[in-house]
Amino acid sequence: MTDPAASAAVEPHDAIDVIRAKRDGAAVPEPALRWMIDAYTRGYVTDPQMSAFTMAVLLNGMDRDEIRVMTEAMIASGERMDFSSLGKPTVDKHSTGGVGDKITLPLAPLVASFGVAVPQLSGRGLGHTGGTLDKLESIPGWRAALSNDEILAQLADVGAVICAAGSGLAPADKKLYALRDVTGTVEAIPLIASSIMSKKIAEGTDALVLDVKFGSGAFIQDLDRARELARTMVALGTDSGVATTALLTDMSTPLGRAIGNANEVRESVEVLAGGGPADVVELTVALAREMLALAGRPDADVEKALADGRAMDVWRRMIRAQDGDPDAALPQPRETHTVTAERGGVVTGIEALPFGIAAWRLGAGRARPQDPVVHAAGIDLHVQPGETVTPGQPLFTLLADDGARFGRALDALTGAWTIGDEPLDPAPRVRERITA
Amino acid sequence: MTDPAASAAVEPHDAIDVIRAKRDGAAVPEPALRWMIDAYTRGYVTDPQMSAFTMAVLLNGMDRDEIRVMTEAMIASGERMDFSSLGKPTVDKHSTGGVGDKITLPLAPLVASFGVAVPQLSGRGLGHTGGTLDKLESIPGWRAALSNDEILAQLADVGAVICAAGSGLAPADKKLYALRDVTGTVEAIPLIASSIMSKKIAEGTDALVLDVKFGSGAFIQDLDRARELARTMVALGTDSGVATTALLTDMSTPLGRAIGNANEVRESVEVLAGGGPADVVELTVALAREMLALAGRPDADVEKALADGRAMDVWRRMIRAQDGDPDAALPQPRETHTVTAERGGVVTGIEALPFGIAAWRLGAGRARPQDPVVHAAGIDLHVQPGETVTPGQPLFTLLADDGARFGRALDALTGAWTIGDEPLDPAPRVRERITA
Repeated sequence: MTDPAASAAVEPHDAIDVIRAKRDGAAVPEPALRWMIDAYTRGYVTDPQMSAFTMAVLLNGMDRDEIRVMTEAMIASGERMDFSSLGKPTVDKHSTGGVGDKITLPLAPLVASFGVAVPQLSGRGLGHTGGTLDKLESIPGWRAALSNDEILAQLADVGAVICAAGSGLAPADKKLYALRDVTGTVEAIPLIASSIMSKKIAEGTDALVLDVKFGSGAFIQDLDRARELARTMVALGTDSGVATTALLTDMSTPLGRAIGNANEVRESVEVLAGGGPADVVELTVALAREMLALAGRPDADVEKALADGRAMDVWRRMIRAQDGDPDAALPQPRETHTVTAERGGVVTGIEALPFGIAAWRLGAGRARPQDPVVHAAGIDLHVQPGETVTPGQPLFTLLADDGARFGRALDALTGAWTIGDEPLDPAPRVRERITA
Repeated sequence: MTDPAASAAVEPHDAIDVIRAKRDGAAVPEPALRWMIDAYTRGYVTDPQMSAFTMAVLLNGMDRDEIRVMTEAMIASGERMDFSSLGKPTVDKHSTGGVGDKITLPLAPLVASFGVAVPQLSGRGLGHTGGTLDKLESIPGWRAALSNDEILAQLADVGAVICAAGSGLAPADKKLYALRDVTGTVEAIPLIASSIMSKKIAEGTDALVLDVKFGSGAFIQDLDRARELARTMVALGTDSGVATTALLTDMSTPLGRAIGNANEVRESVEVLAGGGPADVVELTVALAREMLALAGRPDADVEKALADGRAMDVWRRMIRAQDGDPDAALPQPRETHTVTAERGGVVTGIEALPFGIAAWRLGAGRARPQDPVVHAAGIDLHVQPGETVTPGQPLFTLLADDGARFGRALDALTGAWTIGDEPLDPAPRVRERITA
């Protein structure tokens, strides 16, 4: 116990005082909050103390200023990148993650085809939502790890880079996320927002478009909470000098027809070739327009760049720049298992979460950060909601390197699709747009 | 990340699930809560996890069943004592702690003088509220540590024991309290209640009277919160088969005229001799009546036992049984500093908290558990609220072994007493009585 009359003078930023302030519903003053994050990163504030603090944040919230200060403190814990020497606008995209979400792959080269630099520093997948780097590593030779100099050179030359985020960006976030993961505090919106945005702001982009998912396959399933997260991040980006827009998009059904790694690359290339599933094209085009608008190119003809091969050209140069062969054959599964329609009718529902879990169980995702993924594993959907099927028509095919995995994957899929009689017009993916 | 579809089957009691349930406002099911406390005691649940859980308990509360289950789990973490072989009723008292609170000293022998066994297992002081064992250790030779056999023998022979609680009682509480102390979660009422009651129930008493303090010198200053704590503990005792009553008592001014250790023993002996300050006598008598009523002696003439020396006889035997000399001189301070009235009038206020802090700074209390206390240090009040003073009349005397301590003690006392012109009739100490 400390002397209650003396503590304010002896230690102006005491961890217990900071915890109590948030616990009792107050805003934590800026110097105390900066100290708390810095001291936690250095180990002066302990894990149990930070854990109590994050639970108090989850339950009592943080105001806009607190979220900005916390984010700035996390950025200050590590290095910042600087793309100002490029002489062209930089714009990045972040998705909160979904089932079949391969949008980054066609999007980055598409936007870069308009002379805008797209530094897309990404992570690996954990759980059922997959990771952009895991998908690209299906391509023979392609490497995710680039030095800062290589990133700058590729942005200057090709315009688009998708690579691994270095560990030097916001190390406080890394430590804090690991703690939240085991203490039931992942779901706090101020902490999600500052975690995502600290890395994106440290990355040094001029502008950022957020794809905030809702629905059963999303990290945040509830639309209202997804909207709150989107608004929080848009405010935070704006307050930090990064022009930020968010789209709220539906993740209740898988995005496109491919869920996995190699098959998602294949579908991305279809989109770059002017084809691909309508919903993947819709979302790619919508996000590209937002990014180009923030980069000062609101009138860019995005569809044309997909149709005439310009986006594909950037894709091929981007893959080659990272030692990948865009013409190489992608890995094929050793075993497949196709499920057919038990009746005829209209596909009325394909639930994203069980299909994400099934793909994960087939080997497309990992349970622990150090596990490898099986690049050929996943699920190919042969139909999407609204399409008509006849009895016996193939609905989807499970892909795996080991047929023993099919049983548990199929367990996850019980009741995950429905066939009805009424026609269904699928809703658009993009539901709302949030601006500063 | 664990497989969301599989986690329930693989690990029925997962710490993150328990944290999330409480975080989201649910009651934690009984087996999961028992597991949580047991696993924390054994180290399977980590400090950061328990810290997040306790913050969620502080902010979202626990229902009556959860508090009972948590308390039972803490009791089950250690040994239980059993006084049933004594063949007489046992009744204990617990105070939430206050400034000048020496009531246990006259109370235990007073109640025991009616043939009731009083096992008073106590702690040491930390912070400004002092500890019963620290006070008794002012008596030359007296020892706090007794074996379980010695406790039983003394209860059978003398009837009253005040000694150190063994570390075998509710070790989960000890671990949990140390965590709460550094993570800003001390103030959670369900956790305070289960902490106090787990030790008292494990101690094996038949009945328990709680002295729950409110006011500036109390751990919980707000009357409504003190009442909530009292009701929670009375319900918990009742649910656990221990007849429990609580008194809500005023701790806004120091209790009696002595604040310290040796001087509080002296004042206690005055009460046992039939004298002493009116408020100390009021509270001692009120608590004794409650204890005796629970022990089946509602008509016991408590005042008579103080007036005729029976309580004093038990006191002397109790001190001797623990190797103390009840006739030995108590330690005297090396230096004193007396503050006098700057004007004449009526003493209208003496604030408990600053006087508690001042006594602590004089050496009567400790800042760290391993520190010693100065037995002669403290404060003697020469007046109490409602008394009339003339200019220059002594108000109080600071007692210390080192005169250098007076300055910081006086700093704490700035504005801590007031002298006015209107007569003041001091309110009684006991304000409410809470029964099952």
